[in-house]
Amino acid sequence: MPVPSEGRPSFSPCGLVTLTTDFGTTDGYVGAMKGRILACSRKLRIEDIAHGVPAQNIVHGAATICAAAPYWPPGTVHIVVIDPGVGTERRALAAVAGGHCLIGPDNGVLAPVLEMLGAEACHQITRNRATESFLPDVTAPTFHGRDLFAPIGAALASGALALPETGPSCDWLRLKQPRPVPGVDHVEGEIILFDHFGNGVTNLRAEDLPGPSPLTVSCGAISLALHDTYAAVAPGKALALMGSSGFLEIAVRDKHAGESLGLRIHDRIQVRKA
Amino acid sequence: MPVPSEGRPSFSPCGLVTLTTDFGTTDGYVGAMKGRILACSRKLRIEDIAHGVPAQNIVHGAATICAAAPYWPPGTVHIVVIDPGVGTERRALAAVAGGHCLIGPDNGVLAPVLEMLGAEACHQITRNRATESFLPDVTAPTFHGRDLFAPIGAALASGALALPETGPSCDWLRLKQPRPVPGVDHVEGEIILFDHFGNGVTNLRAEDLPGPSPLTVSCGAISLALHDTYAAVAPGKALALMGSSGFLEIAVRDKHAGESLGLRIHDRIQVRKA
Amino acid sequence: MPVPSEGRPSFSPCGLVTLTTDFGTTDGYVGAMKGRILACSRKLRIEDIAHGVPAQNIVHGAATICAAAPYWPPGTVHIVVIDPGVGTERRALAAVAGGHCLIGPDNGVLAPVLEMLGAEACHQITRNRATESFLPDVTAPTFHGRDLFAPIGAALASGALALPETGPSCDWLRLKQPRPVPGVDHVEGEIILFDHFGNGVTNLRAEDLPGPSPLTVSCGAISLALHDTYAAVAPGKALALMGSSGFLEIAVRDKHAGESLGLRIHDRIQVRKA
Repeated sequence: MPVPSEGRPSFSPCGLVTLTTDFGTTDGYVGAMKGRILACSRKLRIEDIAHGVPAQNIVHGAATICAAAPYWPPGTVHIVVIDPGVGTERRALAAVAGGHCLIGPDNGVLAPVLEMLGAEACHQITRNRATESFLPDVTAPTFHGRDLFAPIGAALASGALALPETGPSCDWLRLKQPRPVPGVDHVEGEIILFDHFGNGVTNLRAEDLPGPSPLTVSCGAISLALHDTYAAVAPGKALALMGSSGFLEIAVRDKHAGESLGLRIHDRIQVRKA
Repeated sequence: MPVPSEGRPSFSPCGLVTLTTDFGTTDGYVGAMKGRILACSRKLRIEDIAHGVPAQNIVHGAATICAAAPYWPPGTVHIVVIDPGVGTERRALAAVAGGHCLIGPDNGVLAPVLEMLGAEACHQITRNRATESFLPDVTAPTFHGRDLFAPIGAALASGALALPETGPSCDWLRLKQPRPVPGVDHVEGEIILFDHFGNGVTNLRAEDLPGPSPLTVSCGAISLALHDTYAAVAPGKALALMGSSGFLEIAVRDKHAGESLGLRIHDRIQVRKA
Repeated sequence: MPVPSEGRPSFSPCGLVTLTTDFGTTDGYVGAMKGRILACSRKLRIEDIAHGVPAQNIVHGAATICAAAPYWPPGTVHIVVIDPGVGTERRALAAVAGGHCLIGPDNGVLAPVLEMLGAEACHQITRNRATESFLPDVTAPTFHGRDLFAPIGAALASGALALPETGPSCDWLRLKQPRPVPGVDHVEGEIILFDHFGNGVTNLRAEDLPGPSPLTVSCGAISLALHDTYAAVAPGKALALMGSSGFLEIAVRDKHAGESLGLRIHDRIQVRKA
């Protein structure tokens, strides 16, 4: 698939850098990245999006940055590091979409946000004449967040490096995600993640559903009504609703739906006219 | 109860916005709020107070903001989103107390901090001529943090919106909390939360206790001496002490008191002269 | 051991303050510290390194700040509060190493980073004529993070207080850590912590190992090859590798090595020529 290339990419750095990782908050990994960014330029502003993405969960990380990035001002650099293949031949990417710059490994974690925001350019980060002054002499094979993504992201965010200088244009790996399966009077999808509250987020958007309400959502033997808010049902009761990121969710009011209902990732969900 | 209204509220924005939520750090929820705030004004500074408040726990969230807010400079906007009733008829509040601005749902989570800092004004946030330019066209019924509290908080923090413009004056819901029960030679309270270290924080302040030390604290069959520091007892031993936020705590040195002693929220605590 | 004192300490504040604690993200403890810092000077910038250091784990906290601090610009103030002995006679320290300022309790948590960066000066923080204007009238015996380290760190970071003004010069407590035990054709070390991913981090550096690869790493009955990246083995398989902070790690690809292999802190690790 050819890389979009019409016109000039729209990225003009505004000095903001966001971080989305699965590094957790017990160790110095996030702090090392922040230090590297501010050592490049103390004028940059760093904001945490999330560091508790489940370890090595590319699908969850992709959803996390998708749920946050659209609300940021154009010119923001988003560094996303869920990177189980760090140190292998997987590429490192710097891309522009909708005026935002996205930085991370080429393992699918950036694909949904690039497609949602409208990818304009994508480059493979390489050690070259333009980048080498920003990179440490030795790059740890297990920590590209600190040694590659942070310094390149900082250089782009501060305007010291231009996107085309990061390396050659390239395509990016798509994220393998299940597609909704439409039927005659229903649609079938699946749970792709559980969020912090235990809501089971599916791959079904409003436009995938078989018409407007009333609809019935079923998951195995469980049948649920579609409501607008969690508090539409009594505490402890299950419901379905369209979540704030635009996907159908299975929830239990004030409880963890996965644990309460015995649901798991990849469980199939049917939505049909009531 | 009438709303305090003497004189002009003391809030003069200093550009600081704090966030206290139960959103956790796995998803894009916190990041979406931050993006909305900075999209309003990139000059604002956002600081995380806590995003790990136990889910839907209004009492814990109220204690968290109470423990932090008094130390911030006046002019700070504190956004507090523990919001199990999001999307229902519960009001959204913007209030001023002690020179601070407090933003959040009207479910009691703001009540203790408003009372502690000295509430000066409280308004119900509505979509009106002044606020509508800051609000998205559609507000997700399940995410007022992103679509209502963040943009209104940002508009207040940047000085683009004045507090009375947020909506009509209103009262706020009080937080239902157990009161200390004084006896002849003792006082009875209860555990209202366990903090991150596992300390059981009670509803008893120093002024509730029956005189100065020596005092004995008991909880069921457990009897404890009151000390000044955790390290006053040997590792693994239980003690009582006045915590840093001014409430009596049940602790076990270097361990989780709730798990070690089998304590639970609402367990009754007696303090009597030794 | 005498305190290093040749020449002038190299610390010149750049306005950055980092926080490393075991306070977690459920309560107002971190937020209270941040408020105190910004109440001293709103120009300061606060960045979180980590607040999920395992509770009271001085060894883990020392490793966390060691993994992050070297990447920050000189002139940064790093406040590190893992402080099980708070309120006892243990000293409070303000030190300079490699152009960075380190603030925290004198319980060993600062020792490795001071030694790694090259300690230049160390002072015991006291209430004196210079510091008293920055300190609250009453210091809570259980929360020096809020009442002592935050205000002193802020005063140093803003240039309002000079390091020698914090109190008398002093030595600092060393962290008791196991040393590698070299043998004829092997070296023996141990696991000192598990990181967020479950990797067992040992006390063995590259220079401790018996020559270059191929080497075999063993832990009880488990024998492992040394690889460069986690993805060098199949998912679920165990390996050893040199981690990004320079220490040998025991890992299981995409899993928690401690849980998968039944390893614990202090388990002995042997490395020998293959």
